[in-house]
Amino acid sequence: MEFELGSAISVLERTPATFRALLSGLGEAWTSPNEGPETFSAFDNLAHLIHGERADWIGRARIILEQGENRRFEPFDRFAHYRESEGKSLAQLLDEFDELRRQNLETLRGWRLTDRELALEGEHPAFGAVTLRQLLSAWVVHDLGHLAQTARVMAKQYRDAIGPWREYLPIVTR
Amino acid sequence: MEFELGSAISVLERTPATFRALLSGLGEAWTSPNEGPETFSAFDNLAHLIHGERADWIGRARIILEQGENRRFEPFDRFAHYRESEGKSLAQLLDEFDELRRQNLETLRGWRLTDRELALEGEHPAFGAVTLRQLLSAWVVHDLGHLAQTARVMAKQYRDAIGPWREYLPIVTR
Repeated sequence: MEFELGSAISVLERTPATFRALLSGLGEAWTSPNEGPETFSAFDNLAHLIHGERADWIGRARIILEQGENRRFEPFDRFAHYRESEGKSLAQLLDEFDELRRQNLETLRGWRLTDRELALEGEHPAFGAVTLRQLLSAWVVHDLGHLAQTARVMAKQYRDAIGPWREYLPIVTR
Repeated sequence: MEFELGSAISVLERTPATFRALLSGLGEAWTSPNEGPETFSAFDNLAHLIHGERADWIGRARIILEQGENRRFEPFDRFAHYRESEGKSLAQLLDEFDELRRQNLETLRGWRLTDRELALEGEHPAFGAVTLRQLLSAWVVHDLGHLAQTARVMAKQYRDAIGPWREYLPIVTR
């Protein structure tokens, strides 16, 4: 599929409600375990998405749109959310994600991006020139990746409980 | 984590709303493509979960609870939903899943299962003796697996659109 702004937004705007439906009110036995050192729990996945709302996608889009001398993105700290989410409840994170995503999509819609603007480039610290179109596509895929990761870390909590079904349910060993 | 009925139900009861939040009103460009021959689109994942509500989990739990002479489960047809969902809209499937899951969880709660009953066995056509506890655990993991699969098949539609981000977003090549 080619990138199309309205179609991308239709996924981005659904993510907070999807996480809310999946996680709101759920016990910590499901939301707090992770998959091992330096991996994310369900709670961490949500906190990481929130960090992206603050520090990643829209900020990088701005760098591209401004076309200043230095178009290099700040490296994104994949573990900053550990610090930022400390002491917060899951319910707080769900509200925060809702609100930040709403604001960011308002900003994005407000730009009324043209094809010319979507083709502008910034510089990714790891892999160089990227277009605004690629950045916004990556935002969508990043959401879906963390949704899949959240489902997976939850599923793994039943790795032993399912007994021989392990063979048919590869998500618990992935 | 050990299986615990209330905790398992807390995931099972959230799945229909999670699929609704993710897919309701979304364009077919996101919901209809699959990952290749004999793989599931987002629509198919939902239809497959519905087929499980009708033909799999609760029916198999009944076979175990009855402890009749023949405790062997009917093989589950992983592709029956292609036929059953033909001509239906995504909105219809979302309603159907909601309603069937609600009924099935009402049945499950009504059984007020004891530890003794959860340890009763049935016979899986492929891997033999399984307990009711394992069956119910597998139901939970099966939900989460298809949620992850749905996120993945959607993400893959942007495999080319994300350009060099492919390297950081492994979900598009998984």
